[in-house]
Amino acid sequence: MRAVDMILKKRDGEFLQEKEIHRFIEYYIKGMIPDYQMSAMCMAIYFKGMNSKEVSSLTMAMANSGDTVDLSPISGIKIDKHSTGGVADTTTLIVGPLVAAAGVPFAKMSGRSLGYTGGTIDKLESIPGFQTSINQEQFIKQVNEINLAIIGQSKNLAPADKKLYAIRDVTGTVSSIPLIASSIMSKKIAGGANKLLLDVKTGNGAFMKNKEDAYELAKTMVTIGQEVNKETIAIVTNMDQPLGTAVGNSLEVEEAILTLQGKTKGPLRELCLYLGAHMLVLADKVKDIDEGIPLLNNLLESGAALKKLEEMINAQGGNGEVVKNTSLLPQAVGKHQVKVRQDGYINFVDAEALGFAAMILGAGREYKDSKIDLSVGIKIHVKREDKVKAGQTLLTIHYNDKVKLEGALKIIPKVFQFANYEVEPEPLVYGMVSQRGRFTLNLKL
Amino acid sequence: MRAVDMILKKRDGEFLQEKEIHRFIEYYIKGMIPDYQMSAMCMAIYFKGMNSKEVSSLTMAMANSGDTVDLSPISGIKIDKHSTGGVADTTTLIVGPLVAAAGVPFAKMSGRSLGYTGGTIDKLESIPGFQTSINQEQFIKQVNEINLAIIGQSKNLAPADKKLYAIRDVTGTVSSIPLIASSIMSKKIAGGANKLLLDVKTGNGAFMKNKEDAYELAKTMVTIGQEVNKETIAIVTNMDQPLGTAVGNSLEVEEAILTLQGKTKGPLRELCLYLGAHMLVLADKVKDIDEGIPLLNNLLESGAALKKLEEMINAQGGNGEVVKNTSLLPQAVGKHQVKVRQDGYINFVDAEALGFAAMILGAGREYKDSKIDLSVGIKIHVKREDKVKAGQTLLTIHYNDKVKLEGALKIIPKVFQFANYEVEPEPLVYGMVSQRGRFTLNLKL
Repeated sequence: MRAVDMILKKRDGEFLQEKEIHRFIEYYIKGMIPDYQMSAMCMAIYFKGMNSKEVSSLTMAMANSGDTVDLSPISGIKIDKHSTGGVADTTTLIVGPLVAAAGVPFAKMSGRSLGYTGGTIDKLESIPGFQTSINQEQFIKQVNEINLAIIGQSKNLAPADKKLYAIRDVTGTVSSIPLIASSIMSKKIAGGANKLLLDVKTGNGAFMKNKEDAYELAKTMVTIGQEVNKETIAIVTNMDQPLGTAVGNSLEVEEAILTLQGKTKGPLRELCLYLGAHMLVLADKVKDIDEGIPLLNNLLESGAALKKLEEMINAQGGNGEVVKNTSLLPQAVGKHQVKVRQDGYINFVDAEALGFAAMILGAGREYKDSKIDLSVGIKIHVKREDKVKAGQTLLTIHYNDKVKLEGALKIIPKVFQFANYEVEPEPLVYGMVSQRGRFTLNLKL
Repeated sequence: MRAVDMILKKRDGEFLQEKEIHRFIEYYIKGMIPDYQMSAMCMAIYFKGMNSKEVSSLTMAMANSGDTVDLSPISGIKIDKHSTGGVADTTTLIVGPLVAAAGVPFAKMSGRSLGYTGGTIDKLESIPGFQTSINQEQFIKQVNEINLAIIGQSKNLAPADKKLYAIRDVTGTVSSIPLIASSIMSKKIAGGANKLLLDVKTGNGAFMKNKEDAYELAKTMVTIGQEVNKETIAIVTNMDQPLGTAVGNSLEVEEAILTLQGKTKGPLRELCLYLGAHMLVLADKVKDIDEGIPLLNNLLESGAALKKLEEMINAQGGNGEVVKNTSLLPQAVGKHQVKVRQDGYINFVDAEALGFAAMILGAGREYKDSKIDLSVGIKIHVKREDKVKAGQTLLTIHYNDKVKLEGALKIIPKVFQFANYEVEPEPLVYGMVSQRGRFTLNLKL
């Protein structure tokens, strides 16, 4: 079958066979199918969607297009965790040590992201000496010894996904749910995990602006997991305001440490316990999250999880002292405080605008090769629903460059909206999708 | 605005501005917008359509992308005629001489088509000595002298359309009505005509298989004409059976000559008088087709139209004797007759299958650079509704190659369907679309 016939089939709403999808991807990688046919195919998929067999075939075709990681030398069930990305979302640095402390191996390969702040790998690199490029053998040895390692992704992991994403980015076909789902799942599957926990963010600070799209993405990924025999749970969570209180690489590492020190309360800590408990369930460590959450809470309060983080930092060449003394992290030169102008209640915190302001400061990447400033960022001292008084500090901006500070300050007036009445709380977790179906949870922020 | 933003706009069903469309085409021609963005745009247009402003802007952007022909040195209203293509459709070779004999200039540039038989230019080249590549100056001089010239299209006419068509062909975006309409209209407008008569074929032997699509295409082209101030009439005609009785290049020239000699009756002659009469109306020669048809009928019966054809052939270096002696046309070596097997009525003639059989014989182009055999083809001795007796000849196949004959004969059993009852006639002309609206006509075959 010619490439054009496969495009026509999809355009007319027919289903592509597994063999056809595998050949399409194989030929695309080999350059035998040109970009202009792939972009037309993506646009046809945008309009006509894919059924579960198709999206699973696409996922596997991309997962097998390059290196695949064999985690079988690590004993036990290997569970990967993925977040679709939000603002002040540093869950990996907290969940990893938590589950590792509970005896569940956390062997994570992570990327450098394009966006408001760096990816997990960028954040970790703000720890003095920390190495993210370690080889497979060492990686596995480390996980077997201490249950915890976070390293950079192999360059040749799911290269079909990389090539496809580059084309989607310039042809208006990024926001297609089957294409997003197969992109995420292909990398996770190539990464060798047995089971997956997905945190699908929705709200103004997330890629998925509305809940129904987020559920659709969650459902599609869980279905792929089922089709390819990797049990997958997806949690749909609130990203209408920043999750934590820090936006920026070293500031987020600091917040992760403070959280593991037991010094913070709030949605970031809550969500980490919740996500971690789901990982324990997937790992058959506990029967349900009601058993898992207190177990992890104890490991947090006892300092066992913080100890795990320290072990990982030391094992990967970093200065483990940082978990006791966060001033060892890179510090920005200047701090600028933004104050409340009049009494009221915080009605809305624009996570996207805040993320954008942090990117302007240098915390994120506007372009693929932008250099990140690891020390800059924004600390948020209030959250939605808070009652505030005039003169109270809303934000502290950590900056190194006054021109960039000015740029960020232009965004700030958009970030907060105030009300003169008490504001109703919003859920932190909207619901979950597992192989058993979709559940509404509505955990409060 | 970046190319990707324009794709997103169209994908989301918004309308593109004239300026945006012109820039998209300009940048595409210059290679600044790559094929992969154009193919995604075409697929978005396939799904979301274009409004009349957009499709007119696209038409004009393509019309002005290369050479344009200035027909102003020809006095009077210059009307172009275009058929969307059918089987045994040799109307141009009859309509041209008819309207020229009525004093209306017929200055036509025509293409070599890809399909069942050659284009008008291929057909004319079966006349010994006939030149289709003559320069602009001579072309205009000839039309001013005898009202009639048919030449090959300039290679640089609407190059954006050529480049776009090549991409559409391999990305599943050919059958988009705004893209088809703008492709046809851009070439006609670049060709310099003041007004246009379009014959939109529908049925199994046409690209538009169903009437509603044909009307939609007709309406879109008439609207473009209105937007760009070129009065356009589109006639929607029946292509469920071959129009004439000959499929193949020299056989079609012979049929045109026989028709202009007054020796044929039937749908081809009827449609030529009908289309010609519309051209006289567009040229302000007559007030309506009821005045135009008898006028043209007289010019046909008197031999004046045949004389015009002879003048054109002589003017373009051909042997004008051919209009009296069609045996001067290339003749195939072998003739094979296909007979009726049992008495009955002809219920269905598959124009597409017949065209395909003629292409197998060598009369058409399967690929862009296939060489055409001008002498081969098929003569059809019956038509739908005819009562036939066993042993009667259905077809005569003119062939040069026995292997190709065998190939064509494999198709023939699919061509005819018989009934044992009288068959209801079908219309020849379904209706017309003009600036004043859509009219149903239902002229009988």
